[in-house]
Amino acid sequence: MASLQSIKSSCRKVMCIGRNYADHVKELNNQRPKQPFFFLKPPSAILLPGAGPVLRPRGVSLHYEVELALVIGKQVKDLHPEDTEGALASIDAYLLAIDMTARNVQDEAKKKGLPWSIAKGFDTFLPISPLIAKSQIPDPHNATIWLSVNNQLKQSDSTELMLFRIPRQLSDISRVMTLEAGDIVLTGTPKGVGQVGSGDVMRAGLSVGGREVAEAGMEVE
Amino acid sequence: MASLQSIKSSCRKVMCIGRNYADHVKELNNQRPKQPFFFLKPPSAILLPGAGPVLRPRGVSLHYEVELALVIGKQVKDLHPEDTEGALASIDAYLLAIDMTARNVQDEAKKKGLPWSIAKGFDTFLPISPLIAKSQIPDPHNATIWLSVNNQLKQSDSTELMLFRIPRQLSDISRVMTLEAGDIVLTGTPKGVGQVGSGDVMRAGLSVGGREVAEAGMEVE
Ligand SMILES: [Mg+2]
Ligand SMILES: [Mg+2]
Ligand SMILES: [Mg+2]
Repeated sequence: MASLQSIKSSCRKVMCIGRNYADHVKELNNQRPKQPFFFLKPPSAILLPGAGPVLRPRGVSLHYEVELALVIGKQVKDLHPEDTEGALASIDAYLLAIDMTARNVQDEAKKKGLPWSIAKGFDTFLPISPLIAKSQIPDPHNATIWLSVNNQLKQSDSTELMLFRIPRQLSDISRVMTLEAGDIVLTGTPKGVGQVGSGDVMRAGLSVGGREVAEAGMEVE
Repeated sequence: MASLQSIKSSCRKVMCIGRNYADHVKELNNQRPKQPFFFLKPPSAILLPGAGPVLRPRGVSLHYEVELALVIGKQVKDLHPEDTEGALASIDAYLLAIDMTARNVQDEAKKKGLPWSIAKGFDTFLPISPLIAKSQIPDPHNATIWLSVNNQLKQSDSTELMLFRIPRQLSDISRVMTLEAGDIVLTGTPKGVGQVGSGDVMRAGLSVGGREVAEAGMEVE
Protein backbone atom coordinates (compact mmCIF):
# COMPACT_ATOMS: atom_id res chain seq x y z
CA MET A 1 0.00 0.00 0.00
CA ALA A 2 1.20 3.53 -0.77
CA SER A 3 2.37 5.65 2.15
CA LEU A 4 0.45 8.71 3.21
CA GLN A 5 3.35 11.02 2.33
CA SER A 6 3.51 9.59 -1.18
CA ILE A 7 -0.21 10.21 -1.64
CA LYS A 8 0.40 13.88 -2.23
CA SER A 9 3.80 13.68 -3.87
CA SER A 10 2.94 10.91 -6.31
CA CYS A 11 -0.59 11.97 -7.22
CA ARG A 12 -0.83 13.33 -10.74
CA LYS A 13 -4.57 13.49 -11.21
CA VAL A 14 -7.64 13.72 -9.02
CA MET A 15 -10.89 12.85 -10.82
CA CYS A 16 -14.20 13.52 -9.10
CA ILE A 17 -17.67 12.43 -10.09
CA GLY A 18 -20.50 14.94 -9.79
CA ARG A 19 -24.11 14.27 -8.74
CA ASN A 20 -23.70 10.64 -7.74
CA TYR A 21 -26.24 10.49 -4.90
CA ALA A 22 -29.89 11.23 -5.77
CA ASP A 23 -30.73 13.23 -2.63
CA HIS A 24 -27.66 15.42 -3.08
CA VAL A 25 -28.66 16.11 -6.68
CA LYS A 26 -32.03 17.34 -5.38
CA GLU A 27 -30.64 19.53 -2.60
CA LEU A 28 -28.60 21.53 -5.13
CA ASN A 29 -31.56 21.73 -7.54
CA ASN A 30 -29.59 19.92 -10.18
CA GLN A 31 -30.76 17.49 -12.84
CA ARG A 32 -30.15 13.82 -12.22
CA PRO A 33 -27.48 12.88 -14.78
CA LYS A 34 -28.21 10.23 -17.44
CA GLN A 35 -24.52 9.40 -17.43
CA PRO A 36 -21.73 10.16 -14.98
CA PHE A 37 -19.75 13.38 -15.40
CA PHE A 38 -16.36 14.19 -13.97
CA PHE A 39 -14.07 17.06 -13.13
CA LEU A 40 -10.43 17.41 -12.14
CA LYS A 41 -8.99 18.81 -8.95
CA PRO A 42 -5.26 19.62 -8.94
CA PRO A 43 -2.95 17.49 -6.75
CA SER A 44 -1.78 20.78 -5.19
CA ALA A 45 -5.16 20.95 -3.42
CA ILE A 46 -4.44 17.83 -1.33
CA LEU A 47 -4.23 18.56 2.40
CA LEU A 48 -2.58 15.74 4.32
CA PRO A 49 -3.80 14.94 7.86
CA GLY A 50 -2.12 17.26 10.36
CA ALA A 51 -0.81 19.56 7.63
CA GLY A 52 -2.84 22.54 8.83
CA PRO A 53 -6.29 23.99 8.37
CA VAL A 54 -8.49 24.29 5.31
CA LEU A 55 -8.06 27.84 4.04
CA ARG A 56 -11.15 29.79 3.06
CA PRO A 57 -10.43 32.22 0.22
CA ARG A 58 -11.84 35.69 0.77
CA GLY A 59 -15.39 36.17 -0.52
CA VAL A 60 -15.94 32.46 -0.95
CA SER A 61 -18.93 30.45 0.21
CA LEU A 62 -17.00 27.35 1.30
CA HIS A 63 -18.88 24.03 1.16
CA TYR A 64 -17.86 20.56 2.36
CA GLU A 65 -18.68 17.35 0.47
CA VAL A 66 -17.54 14.16 2.19
CA GLU A 67 -16.63 11.39 -0.25
CA LEU A 68 -15.13 7.92 -0.38
CA ALA A 69 -11.90 8.21 -2.38
CA LEU A 70 -9.99 5.52 -4.24
CA VAL A 71 -6.22 5.49 -4.51
CA ILE A 72 -5.40 3.86 -7.83
CA GLY A 73 -2.68 1.19 -7.71
CA LYS A 74 -1.94 0.52 -11.35
CA GLN A 75 -2.60 1.73 -14.87
CA VAL A 76 -6.25 1.49 -15.92
CA LYS A 77 -7.32 1.96 -19.54
CA ASP A 78 -10.67 1.15 -21.19
CA LEU A 79 -12.03 -0.80 -18.24
CA HIS A 80 -15.32 -2.55 -19.00
CA PRO A 81 -18.21 -1.03 -16.98
CA GLU A 82 -19.20 -4.44 -15.65
CA ASP A 83 -15.68 -5.55 -14.76
CA THR A 84 -16.16 -5.35 -10.99
CA GLU A 85 -13.17 -7.56 -10.31
CA GLY A 86 -10.91 -5.46 -12.53
CA ALA A 87 -12.17 -2.27 -10.90
CA LEU A 88 -11.49 -3.53 -7.38
CA ALA A 89 -8.09 -4.89 -8.42
CA SER A 90 -7.09 -1.43 -9.65
CA ILE A 91 -7.64 0.09 -6.20
CA ASP A 92 -4.60 0.24 -3.93
CA ALA A 93 -6.29 1.76 -0.87
CA TYR A 94 -9.13 4.02 0.22
CA LEU A 95 -9.32 7.48 1.75
CA LEU A 96 -11.96 9.70 3.19
CA ALA A 97 -11.79 12.98 1.32
CA ILE A 98 -13.64 16.26 1.51
CA ASP A 99 -14.26 17.83 -1.87
CA MET A 100 -14.15 21.44 -0.66
CA THR A 101 -15.99 23.68 -3.07
CA ALA A 102 -16.22 27.45 -3.54
CA ARG A 103 -19.96 27.18 -4.10
CA ASN A 104 -20.54 30.77 -5.21
CA VAL A 105 -17.66 30.53 -7.68
CA GLN A 106 -19.04 27.23 -8.98
CA ASP A 107 -22.59 28.65 -9.30
CA GLU A 108 -21.21 31.57 -11.33
CA ALA A 109 -19.19 29.20 -13.54
CA LYS A 110 -22.24 27.00 -14.13
CA LYS A 111 -24.34 30.01 -15.10
CA LYS A 112 -21.71 31.20 -17.59
CA GLY A 113 -20.79 27.75 -18.95
CA LEU A 114 -17.24 28.18 -17.61
CA PRO A 115 -14.92 25.48 -16.20
CA TRP A 116 -15.12 24.36 -12.57
CA SER A 117 -11.36 24.11 -12.06
CA ILE A 118 -10.99 27.24 -9.92
CA ALA A 119 -14.11 26.59 -7.81
CA LYS A 120 -12.75 23.14 -6.97
CA GLY A 121 -9.03 23.75 -7.05
CA PHE A 122 -7.82 26.13 -4.33
CA ASP A 123 -4.92 25.00 -2.14
CA THR A 124 -6.21 22.90 0.82
CA PHE A 125 -9.51 22.13 -0.98
CA LEU A 126 -8.89 18.39 -0.73
CA PRO A 127 -8.36 17.40 2.90
CA ILE A 128 -7.90 13.64 3.22
CA SER A 129 -7.84 11.08 6.02
CA PRO A 130 -5.05 8.61 6.73
CA LEU A 131 -4.98 5.71 4.27
CA ILE A 132 -7.59 3.00 4.75
CA ALA A 133 -6.38 -0.50 3.88
CA LYS A 134 -8.49 -2.37 1.34
CA SER A 135 -9.07 -5.15 3.85
CA GLN A 136 -10.94 -2.64 6.03
CA ILE A 137 -13.61 -2.10 3.37
CA PRO A 138 -14.57 -5.50 1.96
CA ASP A 139 -17.23 -3.87 -0.25
CA PRO A 140 -16.89 -0.16 -1.15
CA HIS A 141 -20.60 -0.06 -1.99
CA ASN A 142 -21.46 -1.04 1.55
CA ALA A 143 -19.94 1.50 3.89
CA THR A 144 -21.31 4.55 5.67
CA ILE A 145 -19.56 7.87 5.24
CA TRP A 146 -20.37 10.77 7.51
CA LEU A 147 -19.32 14.32 8.24
CA SER A 148 -20.00 16.55 11.22
CA VAL A 149 -19.39 20.26 11.75
CA ASN A 150 -18.68 21.28 15.35
CA ASN A 151 -20.00 17.88 16.44
CA GLN A 152 -23.30 18.31 14.59
CA LEU A 153 -23.86 15.49 12.13
CA LYS A 154 -24.43 16.92 8.63
CA GLN A 155 -23.90 14.03 6.23
CA SER A 156 -24.32 10.30 6.86
CA ASP A 157 -25.28 7.84 4.16
CA SER A 158 -24.39 4.48 2.77
CA THR A 159 -22.22 4.24 -0.32
CA GLU A 160 -24.80 1.78 -1.64
CA LEU A 161 -26.75 4.89 -2.67
CA MET A 162 -24.25 5.77 -5.42
CA LEU A 163 -26.11 6.28 -8.69
CA PHE A 164 -23.11 5.06 -10.69
CA ARG A 165 -21.00 2.41 -9.00
CA ILE A 166 -17.23 2.27 -8.93
CA PRO A 167 -16.72 -0.07 -11.93
CA ARG A 168 -18.85 2.24 -14.10
CA GLN A 169 -16.96 5.29 -12.81
CA LEU A 170 -13.55 3.77 -13.51
CA SER A 171 -14.78 2.57 -16.87
CA ASP A 172 -16.04 5.98 -17.95
CA ILE A 173 -12.92 7.76 -16.72
CA SER A 174 -10.47 5.24 -18.17
CA ARG A 175 -12.11 5.37 -21.61
CA VAL A 176 -11.24 9.06 -21.69
CA MET A 177 -8.00 9.29 -19.76
CA THR A 178 -5.61 6.61 -18.57
CA LEU A 179 -5.61 6.22 -14.80
CA GLU A 180 -2.15 5.85 -13.31
CA ALA A 181 -0.83 4.52 -10.00
CA GLY A 182 -1.21 7.28 -7.42
CA ASP A 183 -4.21 8.93 -9.08
CA ILE A 184 -7.16 9.56 -6.80
CA VAL A 185 -10.84 9.15 -7.67
CA LEU A 186 -13.59 10.77 -5.58
CA THR A 187 -16.83 8.83 -5.82
CA GLY A 188 -19.41 11.51 -5.01
CA THR A 189 -21.06 13.04 -1.97
CA PRO A 190 -24.35 12.14 -0.28
CA LYS A 191 -26.93 14.72 0.79
CA GLY A 192 -26.30 17.24 3.54
CA VAL A 193 -23.60 19.47 2.04
CA GLY A 194 -23.36 22.92 3.51
CA GLN A 195 -21.23 25.88 4.37
CA VAL A 196 -18.38 26.18 6.86
CA GLY A 197 -16.67 29.28 8.19
CA SER A 198 -13.71 30.40 10.21
CA GLY A 199 -13.02 28.23 13.25
CA ASP A 200 -15.44 25.46 12.30
CA VAL A 201 -14.20 21.94 12.89
CA MET A 202 -15.17 19.22 10.42
CA ARG A 203 -14.93 15.57 11.30
CA ALA A 204 -15.35 12.85 8.72
CA GLY A 205 -15.69 9.14 9.30
CA LEU A 206 -16.31 5.84 7.60
CA SER A 207 -17.91 2.79 9.13
CA VAL A 208 -18.54 -0.72 7.89
CA GLY A 209 -21.29 -2.82 9.47
CA GLY A 210 -21.55 -0.33 12.34
CA ARG A 211 -17.81 -0.49 13.09
CA GLU A 212 -15.84 2.75 12.67
CA VAL A 213 -12.83 2.11 10.44
CA ALA A 214 -11.56 5.63 9.78
CA GLU A 215 -11.95 9.10 11.18
CA ALA A 216 -10.30 12.41 10.46
CA GLY A 217 -10.71 15.96 11.68
CA MET A 218 -9.83 19.27 10.11
CA GLU A 219 -10.33 22.88 11.06
CA VAL A 220 -11.27 25.78 8.81
CA GLU A 221 -9.06 28.82 9.19
CA MET B 1 16.43 22.94 -17.93
CA ALA B 2 14.13 19.95 -17.53
CA SER B 3 14.48 17.11 -20.01
CA LEU B 4 11.74 16.29 -22.47
CA GLN B 5 11.17 12.87 -20.92
CA SER B 6 10.71 14.44 -17.48
CA ILE B 7 8.11 16.85 -18.90
CA LYS B 8 5.48 14.15 -18.90
CA SER B 9 6.64 12.15 -15.90
CA SER B 10 7.13 15.11 -13.57
CA CYS B 11 4.13 17.21 -14.59
CA ARG B 12 1.43 17.27 -11.94
CA LYS B 13 -0.80 20.01 -13.25
CA VAL B 14 -1.57 21.64 -16.59
CA MET B 15 -3.41 24.95 -16.31
CA CYS B 16 -4.83 26.58 -19.41
CA ILE B 17 -6.25 30.04 -19.88
CA GLY B 18 -9.40 30.43 -21.97
CA ARG B 19 -10.29 33.26 -24.36
CA ASN B 20 -6.98 35.09 -24.24
CA TYR B 21 -6.88 36.43 -27.81
CA ALA B 22 -9.66 38.83 -28.87
CA ASP B 23 -10.15 37.47 -32.41
CA HIS B 24 -10.38 33.90 -31.12
CA VAL B 25 -13.02 34.97 -28.61
CA LYS B 26 -15.05 36.35 -31.52
CA GLU B 27 -14.69 33.31 -33.77
CA LEU B 28 -16.26 31.07 -31.10
CA ASN B 29 -19.01 33.64 -30.40
CA ASN B 30 -17.85 33.96 -26.81
CA GLN B 31 -17.89 36.95 -24.51
CA ARG B 32 -14.62 38.75 -23.97
CA PRO B 33 -13.73 37.96 -20.35
CA LYS B 34 -13.35 40.77 -17.79
CA GLN B 35 -10.85 38.60 -15.95
CA PRO B 36 -8.89 35.53 -16.98
CA PHE B 37 -10.39 32.10 -16.42
CA PHE B 38 -8.63 28.78 -16.32
CA PHE B 39 -9.15 25.07 -16.66
CA LEU B 40 -7.09 21.96 -15.95
CA LYS B 41 -5.95 19.30 -18.37
CA PRO B 42 -4.62 16.04 -16.88
CA PRO B 43 -0.90 15.24 -17.28
CA SER B 44 -2.00 11.92 -18.81
CA ALA B 45 -3.07 13.91 -21.89
CA ILE B 46 0.52 14.94 -22.72
CA LEU B 47 1.78 13.51 -26.01
CA LEU B 48 5.56 13.70 -26.33
CA PRO B 49 7.11 14.34 -29.76
CA GLY B 50 7.40 11.08 -31.66
CA ALA B 51 5.16 9.23 -29.20
CA GLY B 52 2.48 8.55 -31.79
CA PRO B 53 -0.55 10.22 -33.28
CA VAL B 54 -3.29 12.31 -31.69
CA LEU B 55 -6.23 9.96 -31.16
CA ARG B 56 -9.68 11.20 -32.13
CA PRO B 57 -12.36 9.70 -29.87
CA ARG B 58 -15.38 8.38 -31.74
CA GLY B 59 -18.13 10.95 -32.33
CA VAL B 60 -15.89 13.84 -31.38
CA SER B 61 -15.42 17.08 -33.31
CA LEU B 62 -11.69 17.42 -32.70
CA HIS B 63 -10.28 20.99 -32.70
CA TYR B 64 -6.69 22.21 -32.53
CA GLU B 65 -5.62 25.30 -30.57
CA VAL B 66 -1.93 26.16 -30.85
CA GLU B 67 -0.53 27.81 -27.72
CA LEU B 68 2.71 28.98 -26.17
CA ALA B 69 3.26 26.87 -23.05
CA LEU B 70 5.37 27.61 -20.00
CA VAL B 71 7.20 24.92 -18.07
CA ILE B 72 7.32 26.10 -14.47
CA GLY B 73 10.71 25.82 -12.77
CA LYS B 74 9.94 26.51 -9.14
CA GLN B 75 7.15 26.96 -6.64
CA VAL B 76 4.99 30.03 -7.32
CA LYS B 77 2.46 31.28 -4.77
CA ASP B 78 0.60 34.60 -4.67
CA LEU B 79 2.64 36.24 -7.42
CA HIS B 80 1.90 39.95 -7.85
CA PRO B 81 0.22 40.65 -11.22
CA GLU B 82 2.81 43.28 -12.08
CA ASP B 83 5.81 41.22 -11.02
CA THR B 84 7.12 40.62 -14.55
CA GLU B 85 10.57 39.72 -13.31
CA GLY B 86 9.19 37.19 -10.84
CA ALA B 87 6.95 35.71 -13.50
CA LEU B 88 9.78 35.24 -15.98
CA ALA B 89 12.06 33.86 -13.26
CA SER B 90 9.51 31.16 -12.48
CA ILE B 91 9.66 29.83 -16.06
CA ASP B 92 12.13 27.02 -16.69
CA ALA B 93 11.52 26.60 -20.43
CA TYR B 94 8.90 26.98 -23.14
CA LEU B 95 6.98 24.55 -25.32
CA LEU B 96 4.64 24.73 -28.23
CA ALA B 97 1.50 22.90 -27.25
CA ILE B 98 -1.76 22.09 -28.97
CA ASP B 99 -4.75 22.27 -26.66
CA MET B 100 -6.79 19.59 -28.45
CA THR B 101 -10.46 20.02 -27.66
CA ALA B 102 -13.53 17.85 -28.18
CA ARG B 103 -15.51 20.89 -29.33
CA ASN B 104 -18.93 19.23 -29.41
CA VAL B 105 -18.39 17.80 -25.91
CA GLN B 106 -17.27 21.23 -24.70
CA ASP B 107 -20.26 22.97 -26.33
CA GLU B 108 -22.60 20.52 -24.59
CA ALA B 109 -20.84 21.06 -21.25
CA LYS B 110 -21.06 24.84 -21.63
CA LYS B 111 -24.77 24.63 -22.38
CA LYS B 112 -25.40 22.49 -19.30
CA GLY B 113 -23.03 24.33 -16.95
CA LEU B 114 -20.91 21.18 -16.61
CA PRO B 115 -17.13 20.91 -16.21
CA TRP B 116 -14.78 20.98 -19.19
CA SER B 117 -12.43 18.29 -17.90
CA ILE B 118 -13.56 15.52 -20.26
CA ALA B 119 -13.75 17.77 -23.36
CA LYS B 120 -10.15 18.83 -22.72
CA GLY B 121 -8.72 15.74 -21.09
CA PHE B 122 -8.62 12.72 -23.42
CA ASP B 123 -5.33 10.85 -23.77
CA THR B 124 -3.12 12.50 -26.48
CA PHE B 125 -5.06 15.81 -26.23
CA LEU B 126 -1.89 17.71 -25.35
CA PRO B 127 0.74 17.19 -28.04
CA ILE B 128 3.87 19.20 -27.31
CA SER B 129 7.04 20.21 -29.12
CA PRO B 130 10.59 19.61 -27.97
CA LEU B 131 11.63 21.97 -25.16
CA ILE B 132 12.48 25.53 -26.17
CA ALA B 133 15.27 27.09 -24.10
CA LYS B 134 14.41 30.40 -22.43
CA SER B 135 17.28 32.08 -24.26
CA GLN B 136 15.47 31.35 -27.54
CA ILE B 137 12.51 33.52 -26.55
CA PRO B 138 13.86 36.74 -25.02
CA ASP B 139 10.31 38.13 -24.64
CA PRO B 140 7.38 35.65 -24.53
CA HIS B 141 5.03 38.49 -25.50
CA ASN B 142 6.89 39.01 -28.74
CA ALA B 143 6.86 35.73 -30.63
CA THR B 144 4.74 34.38 -33.45
CA ILE B 145 3.00 31.05 -33.03
CA TRP B 146 1.50 29.26 -35.99
CA LEU B 147 -0.22 26.04 -36.93
CA SER B 148 -0.85 24.45 -40.29
CA VAL B 149 -3.00 21.49 -41.28
CA ASN B 150 -1.79 19.52 -44.30
CA ASN B 151 0.51 22.47 -45.10
CA GLN B 152 -2.33 25.02 -45.07
CA LEU B 153 -1.67 27.76 -42.57
CA LYS B 154 -4.58 28.00 -40.11
CA GLN B 155 -3.27 30.02 -37.17
CA SER B 156 -0.48 32.60 -37.08
CA ASP B 157 -0.38 35.48 -34.65
CA SER B 158 1.91 37.30 -32.30
CA THR B 159 1.80 36.54 -28.59
CA GLU B 160 1.68 40.32 -28.10
CA LEU B 161 -2.06 39.95 -28.76
CA MET B 162 -2.65 38.16 -25.44
CA LEU B 163 -5.46 39.90 -23.54
CA PHE B 164 -3.93 38.93 -20.21
CA ARG B 165 -0.17 38.73 -20.15
CA ILE B 166 1.92 36.03 -18.49
CA PRO B 167 2.54 37.82 -15.15
CA ARG B 168 -1.22 38.36 -14.73
CA GLN B 169 -1.90 34.73 -15.65
CA LEU B 170 0.64 33.35 -13.19
CA SER B 171 -0.62 35.77 -10.56
CA ASP B 172 -4.24 34.72 -10.94
CA ILE B 173 -3.38 31.01 -10.99
CA SER B 174 -0.96 31.16 -8.07
CA ARG B 175 -3.42 33.02 -5.88
CA VAL B 176 -5.72 30.01 -6.22
CA MET B 177 -3.34 27.09 -6.48
CA THR B 178 0.37 26.81 -5.86
CA LEU B 179 2.34 26.26 -9.04
CA GLU B 180 5.08 23.65 -8.69
CA ALA B 181 8.21 22.80 -10.68
CA GLY B 182 7.16 20.73 -13.68
CA ASP B 183 3.67 22.23 -13.95
CA ILE B 184 2.72 23.49 -17.40
CA VAL B 185 0.74 26.64 -18.21
CA LEU B 186 -0.93 27.14 -21.60
CA THR B 187 -1.26 30.82 -22.44
CA GLY B 188 -4.19 30.78 -24.86
CA THR B 189 -4.78 30.36 -28.57
CA PRO B 190 -5.04 32.98 -31.32
CA LYS B 191 -7.77 32.97 -33.98
CA GLY B 192 -8.05 30.27 -36.60
CA VAL B 193 -8.96 27.19 -34.60
CA GLY B 194 -10.72 24.45 -36.51
CA GLN B 195 -11.38 20.80 -36.94
CA VAL B 196 -9.03 17.99 -37.89
CA GLY B 197 -9.83 14.44 -38.92
CA SER B 198 -8.22 11.13 -39.61
CA GLY B 199 -4.91 11.36 -41.46
CA ASP B 200 -4.55 15.13 -41.13
CA VAL B 201 -1.07 16.36 -40.30
CA MET B 202 -0.69 19.37 -38.01
CA ARG B 203 2.50 21.37 -37.87
CA ALA B 204 3.11 24.00 -35.22
CA GLY B 205 5.89 26.50 -35.07
CA LEU B 206 7.23 29.47 -33.17
CA SER B 207 9.33 32.28 -34.55
CA VAL B 208 11.01 35.29 -33.00
CA GLY B 209 11.83 38.31 -35.14
CA GLY B 210 11.21 36.27 -38.27
CA ARG B 211 13.56 33.47 -37.21
CA GLU B 212 12.02 30.01 -36.68
CA VAL B 213 13.02 28.70 -33.25
CA ALA B 214 10.80 25.64 -32.89
CA GLU B 215 8.68 23.38 -35.02
CA ALA B 216 6.80 20.19 -34.38
CA GLY B 217 4.53 17.95 -36.37
CA MET B 218 1.89 15.48 -35.36
CA GLU B 219 -0.61 13.33 -37.18
CA VAL B 220 -4.22 12.62 -36.30
CA GLU B 221 -5.13 8.95 -36.29
MG1 LIG C 1 -17.95 16.38 -4.89
MG1 LIG D 1 -6.92 26.57 -25.37
MG1 LIG E 1 -13.26 21.86 -15.39
